[in-house]
Amino acid sequence: MKPYAVILCGGRGERFWPKSRRRQPKQFMRLFGDKSLTQQTSERVKPLCPSERQLFVTPAEFAATVRRQLRPKPENLLLEPEGRNTAPAIGVAAAYLAATHPGVTMVVLPADHLIKQRLRFLSSVRLAARLAQEGMLVCFGIPPARPDTGYGYIHVGRKVGGRGRLTAHKVVGFREKPDPDTARSYVRSGNYLWNSGMFVWRVDVILEAFERFMPEFRAALGEFTSAVGTRRQNSALKKVYEQAPSISIDYAVMEKAHNIIAVRATFDWDDVGSWLALARQKRPDKSGNVVNGLCVSRDVQNCIVDSDTGVVAVLGVEDLVVVRSKDAVLVARRDKLGEIKELLKQMAKNPDARGFL
Amino acid sequence: MKPYAVILCGGRGERFWPKSRRRQPKQFMRLFGDKSLTQQTSERVKPLCPSERQLFVTPAEFAATVRRQLRPKPENLLLEPEGRNTAPAIGVAAAYLAATHPGVTMVVLPADHLIKQRLRFLSSVRLAARLAQEGMLVCFGIPPARPDTGYGYIHVGRKVGGRGRLTAHKVVGFREKPDPDTARSYVRSGNYLWNSGMFVWRVDVILEAFERFMPEFRAALGEFTSAVGTRRQNSALKKVYEQAPSISIDYAVMEKAHNIIAVRATFDWDDVGSWLALARQKRPDKSGNVVNGLCVSRDVQNCIVDSDTGVVAVLGVEDLVVVRSKDAVLVARRDKLGEIKELLKQMAKNPDARGFL
Repeated sequence: MKPYAVILCGGRGERFWPKSRRRQPKQFMRLFGDKSLTQQTSERVKPLCPSERQLFVTPAEFAATVRRQLRPKPENLLLEPEGRNTAPAIGVAAAYLAATHPGVTMVVLPADHLIKQRLRFLSSVRLAARLAQEGMLVCFGIPPARPDTGYGYIHVGRKVGGRGRLTAHKVVGFREKPDPDTARSYVRSGNYLWNSGMFVWRVDVILEAFERFMPEFRAALGEFTSAVGTRRQNSALKKVYEQAPSISIDYAVMEKAHNIIAVRATFDWDDVGSWLALARQKRPDKSGNVVNGLCVSRDVQNCIVDSDTGVVAVLGVEDLVVVRSKDAVLVARRDKLGEIKELLKQMAKNPDARGFL
Repeated sequence: MKPYAVILCGGRGERFWPKSRRRQPKQFMRLFGDKSLTQQTSERVKPLCPSERQLFVTPAEFAATVRRQLRPKPENLLLEPEGRNTAPAIGVAAAYLAATHPGVTMVVLPADHLIKQRLRFLSSVRLAARLAQEGMLVCFGIPPARPDTGYGYIHVGRKVGGRGRLTAHKVVGFREKPDPDTARSYVRSGNYLWNSGMFVWRVDVILEAFERFMPEFRAALGEFTSAVGTRRQNSALKKVYEQAPSISIDYAVMEKAHNIIAVRATFDWDDVGSWLALARQKRPDKSGNVVNGLCVSRDVQNCIVDSDTGVVAVLGVEDLVVVRSKDAVLVARRDKLGEIKELLKQMAKNPDARGFL
């Protein structure tokens, strides 16, 4: 049976503020090319999962945006009563497909990843789908390009499938975001891969895992499955969210389950996690600067400048990110970008600034 | 005879870009308080020189702004065909007053200085006016607050007038902008004062100086004097500017003349030369930051932020100036602000950016 894509559109994209806003997070922005990241994600997987086999899971507040950008049929759009985390979103998607396509293999794709090598991506998904059909929970591990401390890592063991460069491995364990020394040792060892947040599994297999690790949640999902296509569908979905914990699929399932396989990705991958992604995706000039929009600079090194309008003039600085987007300006040191969430929390507490989130 | 104020409104205020623009330079901006610097300059001197004894000298392009902000009578406004430097502006003002108020003492005040201690200022001007009436060229020396390398310095000698703290001195010589070591030795010596660019002299005395040091220019001024009040006034003024060199009064006269006295100013003075003036005029917070407008910051030290609209978020940086004004953003290291003129030159060469000057 052909797989079914589940595209998770729920991210908040905070680290892309101020371009990314609460009402227009990064997955709906045209950051690279003339299509949004969500549109690109949908296009990318179409040879395996055409439009009618794609389910968009999104918080209700983004419903209009998803409808405008993706034009899904009603049965291909699942609206979360509110944004939570990946475990609830994946759970309701699985419960929904259990009603409409029981036993189908679902390909879980966050909407905000950038992958350009489409054929390699599709080969990796095909391999993962074969393993998933045998009852495995399959994740994608990305060979680390740098000792990044912002990702979780997958510790992989012996090869269990694939050929050539595209291989599948037993998973020894999941490791949370490491400190810099640990990250460097991971990269050196070659046995640690970035946890990409993409997964492939059969609907019944992931529901079994929920049964084991989150039995109450699984029970609510069961009621939702029986309600799909009836008048009770929406109220059953609400009930799931009333009691669903805000927890990631990694914590909820992957770190506990044993039937896990990692496919070692051969494709390029960027989760566009912050403004630094812009520097990775665009070749810097000879001073190391990456510029989008109108910028005049003098004596400037290693900066990222993004401006949607007007002019940005930069003088005598280095290692900065300068973003102008609509009514907001961000000036940050590159290596402090990780703290932007704390800055946004501060903004949320400031009645004057709140409206700019 | 009561003195007559000549208010020079011709500066370009480039170092205040992007708040200051070609069409709206800093002397017309409400940078401090609800009146523009030019309005404040006019108000400040009124007890000595009421409105009807104030002459505004301004490039024609700012005529509408001066009329709107100052509402001068036609005879109190002198429009330069184009902006030059201080020697031509002062020359035509003197030639104009030679026709309307021969022998009057003129108080030359740049429109873009910030002085808050009005009574002390007026006392200093009164002392200067007395000395000017005796035929001296009088300048104001400001006791240096720091070894600034951005100002010219006046080397002063023995006291020739005044009393208490307010004294007048023979001028030993003018010194151009010094290097940092020289600036420090100037400040230590106590005999070097900042050249403020404010002057007091009799109209006939400054015209005599022009006669001696710029005889051709003086001849053109003479023709303008005879033309004042006639149909030929504008064409005579144009002729002056056709041959007037773009030269400062310091180079043209002060550095060469001998009958020069410096009044040691007892008032506060700031020429609002750049964004750093904002930090001097407003008390920094405990992290050393000075903020105008809506700014959210985290882990930020010693920065100046000025925003006219929206929000500016600053993260993990120090020693920066961040300005958002209308359609432009400036991000500069504090100690590189001196190079802003070069940056603006670059902008002038860029067809896309030129419009933002």
